[in-house]
Amino acid sequence: MNVTEYLKVWADSYKHDLTADILPFWLANGLDRKHGGVYTCLDREGRLMDSTKSVWFQGRFGFVAAYAYNQMERNPEWLEASKSCIDFIEAHCADADGHMYFEVAADGTPLRKRRYVFSECFAAIAMSEYAIASGDKRYAEKALELFKRIQRFLATPGFLEPKYLPALQARGHSITMILINTASRIRAAIDDPVLNTQIDESLDAIRRYFIHPEFKALLEMVGPEGEFIDTCNGRLINPGHCIETAWFILEEARHRGGDKDLTDMALQILDWSWQWGWDEQYGGIINFRDCRNLPVQDYSQDMKFWWPQTEAIIATLYAYQATKDEKYLAMHKQISDWTYAHFPDREHGEWYGYLHRDGTVAQPAKGNIFKGPFHIPRMMIRSYSLCNDICNDIYHEK
Amino acid sequence: MNVTEYLKVWADSYKHDLTADILPFWLANGLDRKHGGVYTCLDREGRLMDSTKSVWFQGRFGFVAAYAYNQMERNPEWLEASKSCIDFIEAHCADADGHMYFEVAADGTPLRKRRYVFSECFAAIAMSEYAIASGDKRYAEKALELFKRIQRFLATPGFLEPKYLPALQARGHSITMILINTASRIRAAIDDPVLNTQIDESLDAIRRYFIHPEFKALLEMVGPEGEFIDTCNGRLINPGHCIETAWFILEEARHRGGDKDLTDMALQILDWSWQWGWDEQYGGIINFRDCRNLPVQDYSQDMKFWWPQTEAIIATLYAYQATKDEKYLAMHKQISDWTYAHFPDREHGEWYGYLHRDGTVAQPAKGNIFKGPFHIPRMMIRSYSLCNDICNDIYHEK
Repeated sequence: MNVTEYLKVWADSYKHDLTADILPFWLANGLDRKHGGVYTCLDREGRLMDSTKSVWFQGRFGFVAAYAYNQMERNPEWLEASKSCIDFIEAHCADADGHMYFEVAADGTPLRKRRYVFSECFAAIAMSEYAIASGDKRYAEKALELFKRIQRFLATPGFLEPKYLPALQARGHSITMILINTASRIRAAIDDPVLNTQIDESLDAIRRYFIHPEFKALLEMVGPEGEFIDTCNGRLINPGHCIETAWFILEEARHRGGDKDLTDMALQILDWSWQWGWDEQYGGIINFRDCRNLPVQDYSQDMKFWWPQTEAIIATLYAYQATKDEKYLAMHKQISDWTYAHFPDREHGEWYGYLHRDGTVAQPAKGNIFKGPFHIPRMMIRSYSLCNDICNDIYHEK
Repeated sequence: MNVTEYLKVWADSYKHDLTADILPFWLANGLDRKHGGVYTCLDREGRLMDSTKSVWFQGRFGFVAAYAYNQMERNPEWLEASKSCIDFIEAHCADADGHMYFEVAADGTPLRKRRYVFSECFAAIAMSEYAIASGDKRYAEKALELFKRIQRFLATPGFLEPKYLPALQARGHSITMILINTASRIRAAIDDPVLNTQIDESLDAIRRYFIHPEFKALLEMVGPEGEFIDTCNGRLINPGHCIETAWFILEEARHRGGDKDLTDMALQILDWSWQWGWDEQYGGIINFRDCRNLPVQDYSQDMKFWWPQTEAIIATLYAYQATKDEKYLAMHKQISDWTYAHFPDREHGEWYGYLHRDGTVAQPAKGNIFKGPFHIPRMMIRSYSLCNDICNDIYHEK
């Protein structure tokens, strides 16, 4: 394989798809030019089918639009879109106690609040990325303040109502891993000791609690000391989620100048999770597995969602960058071949989100409260930069 | 079609399957002879794969075991199983405020509480059915007391934390319809004006708020005055759920001596919901539709679950009983042919619960927190009695 050529073709493809398809689709169909912010519930053709606004996606698109501006091209429309989402968040998305909502109406009227802090995490990375894009340092400070608020919420017993009663004490992979990415995105805009401390704590928790070598797996829910919980939820493996964690860690390892222990841990997670997740029969990364191979109870267990595939594309590029092992480029090709054969909608643009196990489209909407302009454009932006960085490495090594 | 012969064959089949397959499977594999109550998280072979106990299913199996005893045969093992579930509920399943849990551990330690009163509804019908089976009137009084407690919880603002914030005011079909069945099951054991009043109120709400002729549909969530809510959730049609409501109403119409208005409303709901739900391409009742034919966002939208099929089997028999229109027997045959071709596990007993749209098995477990010994045995018990009742009607008409 001519590696440089392979990566250049992909870099061009990522940039083309992002600038000619994905961002135009959401700017034309999703951006709310009346109230600000973004709609995500769009049908196959991009028509609004529900004006409920996801607070996660105000932050996620606020981040992605600024990230594209910072990493790909200085398109003022993208910067404005980012600012629109952030303004909408600041005007409408937090309750009096500072805790953010989960869903609001088109005009920002609060509709639903949940027990998590993911709305805050996405809002924070929107603000820090916008600070980098605009040069307005106040948004970096806001992001940092919000990060400290997240930590305060998490540390205040009872502030976030626990899902389970006290007899079921558990740690979740989701909040542990998202804080790595949240802190590292904010750190790119503003430095503060709480950020590295949080990253260290999360990395330590993943290593000590969530990695279970007896199953060659990273589990989603474990006991307070990492104990294996032998229930349907405790046995759950979410391969795409683990692969996302793997590249968060590879990104951090690179930030630390190629930290070998972190790199090894991340590659271990990637290799194991790929083993669990890659569907030998139909291809693609499957939604869920059970670490004891018992039947998984989530209804979507054998489906192929868009985002695990995008995480695998990023993770295999990071793994190749870290190792120069062509095995990871082969995996990148394998996941890309399957993903690009099944997800993009050649007729109406953007990608389908929800496929059956065999790759047929389960339902053709382009977005809802959980799918919108985040994983796909983030993959394209991140992978575009990775391809270019790796090509530069190769050029300088020669 | 020789109607009597057709119905007699089915009556025998229901009785055989219930007594030789379904109840033995759960008594052997689910009943917890150590702590009492029932486990439902069983794999294909019936092995316990999660000892978490569903509080819904303590009531549901408590009801079903006594219902089988009352309607099919006086098997003391069934009566004991019912009592075991009720004892477990009384010993472990209610919080200090009287609100019941959603999940408890094997020994009854509370694990999770939710914002609903379905645990209470199922516990109440277990108690009233057990009262009929055992002759112990105290359990009828307990059921009635619990029913009044449910009404008090529902009427106390803030007691059950609303899912949405005040800006989104909505009525739900689930609680409206379940109260019809809960009240009518309790009424079979003990009479009290609150029961008929609740049934009247629920029937009135279904007629005034949930039935939307402009979509030929009964909707799952509407505004306080029945307003159509044009969101993904507001447009949702759950055909199996509506068909279940149809037979609850047909049962009530028969209880009232063949009330014509109720019968007509129920048949309308059945006919409409069958139109939405029957899958012309693959057969079976599909999980969800959108009343404006937009893409449905629930991941399981195009799957075939066990329970909508069982509701359709009961509803078509009730509809035939009410009308003697052979169209409904043809529908009964149509749904039965598909259901019995795909759901029963000929090798390990009981039924699969979760099929893909085309009828292939999505995952083979026999139970989880939501599937257990309820819809299938209830269908067999109810349909056995219906077949016999209809045959008696025919015999006496001749």
